[in-house]
Amino acid sequence: MKKEFKEVSGAIVAPKGFSTSGVFCDIKKLGTGKGSNKGPKRDLALIVSETPATVAGMFTTNQVCAAPVKICAERMKRGTAQVVVVNSGNANACTGKQGLADAREMVSFTERSFNFPAGSALVGSTGRIGVTMPMDNVRAGIIEAAILLGSTKEHADHAAEAIMTSDSRPKQIAIEFKLGGKTVRIGGMCKGAGMIQPGMSPTGARPATLPHGGLHATMLCFITTDAAVDAKVLQAVLNEAVAHSFNRITVDGDMSTNDTVLVLANGLAGNKKFKVQSPEFKVFSAALNHVALELAKMIVRDGEGVHRVATVRVNGAKTIQDADVAARAVANSALVKTSWHGGDPNWGRIIDAIGYSAAKVVEEKIDIGYSALGSKKILWSLKRGQPTKATFKELCAAVAPKEFELHINLNLGKANAVMYAADLTEAYVDYNKGDVTDPTTLGG
Amino acid sequence: MKKEFKEVSGAIVAPKGFSTSGVFCDIKKLGTGKGSNKGPKRDLALIVSETPATVAGMFTTNQVCAAPVKICAERMKRGTAQVVVVNSGNANACTGKQGLADAREMVSFTERSFNFPAGSALVGSTGRIGVTMPMDNVRAGIIEAAILLGSTKEHADHAAEAIMTSDSRPKQIAIEFKLGGKTVRIGGMCKGAGMIQPGMSPTGARPATLPHGGLHATMLCFITTDAAVDAKVLQAVLNEAVAHSFNRITVDGDMSTNDTVLVLANGLAGNKKFKVQSPEFKVFSAALNHVALELAKMIVRDGEGVHRVATVRVNGAKTIQDADVAARAVANSALVKTSWHGGDPNWGRIIDAIGYSAAKVVEEKIDIGYSALGSKKILWSLKRGQPTKATFKELCAAVAPKEFELHINLNLGKANAVMYAADLTEAYVDYNKGDVTDPTTLGG
Repeated sequence: MKKEFKEVSGAIVAPKGFSTSGVFCDIKKLGTGKGSNKGPKRDLALIVSETPATVAGMFTTNQVCAAPVKICAERMKRGTAQVVVVNSGNANACTGKQGLADAREMVSFTERSFNFPAGSALVGSTGRIGVTMPMDNVRAGIIEAAILLGSTKEHADHAAEAIMTSDSRPKQIAIEFKLGGKTVRIGGMCKGAGMIQPGMSPTGARPATLPHGGLHATMLCFITTDAAVDAKVLQAVLNEAVAHSFNRITVDGDMSTNDTVLVLANGLAGNKKFKVQSPEFKVFSAALNHVALELAKMIVRDGEGVHRVATVRVNGAKTIQDADVAARAVANSALVKTSWHGGDPNWGRIIDAIGYSAAKVVEEKIDIGYSALGSKKILWSLKRGQPTKATFKELCAAVAPKEFELHINLNLGKANAVMYAADLTEAYVDYNKGDVTDPTTLGG
Repeated sequence: MKKEFKEVSGAIVAPKGFSTSGVFCDIKKLGTGKGSNKGPKRDLALIVSETPATVAGMFTTNQVCAAPVKICAERMKRGTAQVVVVNSGNANACTGKQGLADAREMVSFTERSFNFPAGSALVGSTGRIGVTMPMDNVRAGIIEAAILLGSTKEHADHAAEAIMTSDSRPKQIAIEFKLGGKTVRIGGMCKGAGMIQPGMSPTGARPATLPHGGLHATMLCFITTDAAVDAKVLQAVLNEAVAHSFNRITVDGDMSTNDTVLVLANGLAGNKKFKVQSPEFKVFSAALNHVALELAKMIVRDGEGVHRVATVRVNGAKTIQDADVAARAVANSALVKTSWHGGDPNWGRIIDAIGYSAAKVVEEKIDIGYSALGSKKILWSLKRGQPTKATFKELCAAVAPKEFELHINLNLGKANAVMYAADLTEAYVDYNKGDVTDPTTLGG
């Protein structure tokens, strides 16, 4: 899949007609950085399209959902947008009526700054929960960001930095491919390091059956493309892409109040619009899937305190739901995650988690094995519920790399699911316990 | 409740007619301790009643369930037993047909040692998963333990030590009370420190709707009483007691393959047997509830790496199921647990977990507050979804004690649930990541 798409630089400004910027406007009210233990990191970004773009979004299904999520979910009906304003440092969650008013002011102030019609702006926020937005700082930041807009790699880097919270590095990608004879680009950036197990839907409403017991961290993702795509088609593509990427990752099993993915498609590549399931749809869909999956994996790799990443593949389940809950049980088990951290191929903890999951399983049918990333050569540790002859040393070698794949076959049916999961380390605990004597260390 | 019952010494041998012992028979095959980095800890215990006792049990609902659990669940139909053999160091789980044969040999060898009829013995195991039992050592241990039986406090201490794995201390209790004019005693011991979120049922079969997404650690609990109780009545009392104690605790959210609670009632106190819902039933039920809850709390307090314990009370839910899943979401959230470890009264993470739980909630109705253990004086941090005027300093003081209560009111109905939950610490991660260069450090 990867080789089909040429990677290009520029991330969200790689596609035609997009500009961006990232500025410091002191959303955390730390002062200018003088006297604070944190330097002035950029904390507000704008993403602007030259022309109105069709738009699609996916939002957290957390019932406690932040004001910016409510605003965006509401605005998806419009089908177009032209600018996105994003801040880090404050999630604008659990901020009541004031928070909703502040989020509305963020979009309308942004629209007025560009003289765009009402409804053209979208908003994303990430950071501490329960603190009202410092709106004077936000307004000053929007003005400065509007002045500093540009389309170089440096501009994209500034924006990618501005949306970071506990992330150790920015997360960006851009690819180029042919669509209906035209050269099309998709660019993306995202953030997220803790409170990460997204479960997003197009409206933020929950499906009748939850995809899992219900878990997340704030992740934000902004994708731009110069492809011409109808809003409904774009939403269909995004639903599929998120289902196979962001909704398949877990760092700590906590689902955030703010998880958001937005895609803007401005059509400047000049391709002909396409229908669902057309050949062009499939190409575009594969491309967006690729971008979303690469960005989602960057989140897991850069998760808080993360040392190792496991791709958990459950095959042979009776239903997709069974495969999903079994994969999530393993991917979120504290004991499994700590064993990964220790490089311990502890299949006992894995089969234990499979057994207590809501999936239907039969102990005597379960296979568990390991492979190198992307390899089909599996070293089985358990076959039909019984240990194989693989030695402890061989198994240790299989889980020693920074990334490996865990293969679970339930041998009951044909359904499968995958989760991209982080280990659990002392560094995660140390980071998240914070320091109550310095509340600026306390995350959302 | 507590003051109604007089605590007495002797734990499981406090009731009339019980004897016990705990010996070292080297179940882990470490050698005699010489040259090993672990001293010879006792690893096999017997609990014997002078006369056949009525029996009740609760067993893990994990679909991957250990051989001893299968044997015990099967033997519950018989309604009586006279001896329990328990080992630590090996869970006899995922050991296939050999494991089942070994567990059968453990009970039948024990029965033959005492010349008891077939079916008189029950068995419990805890320790590493996937390793077959060293049966020669086990048989030697049973013989030695049978010789060393006795009814002193020291005998009870030896047995309580023999069932420990990662426990830092033995967990025992005994109480005395009046039942139908007779003096009756109940004694108990338990173990468990990691892989702890039991979800037990009388047969090990799952209820139609799981009590939770499905999560556990091996916990074993053995309760003795000299009360005369019918087996069916005893099971009814135990179901209720476990529902409010062991099935309400979580250390790490992992449900074990081996969780077992057994109660033996030998009738030597001479009380008249009683019916369900009779006044005597209520007294006995309150007493067993007390013993089970005290033992369950000991498990959480001595959980692996545990620093703080929170009693999570969810009130005002629409249904008991809602109250339960909301309480479990909070009690198992990695971010909430690390914040407790840091002494951080982070209600943002708490409301986030409530919001992503499968419970129906409305953000604008949620109250969150803290109180001292057992106190009704609640310091509210959030009322109707909005921060109160409680200061950060006041809230920090509320979560600073080793144990505190967290109060969540959903304000949607009248159902409630409680969970007794441990924090998540670096010590937990460090312990459980183990050391692959020394496999004896790797837990089950």
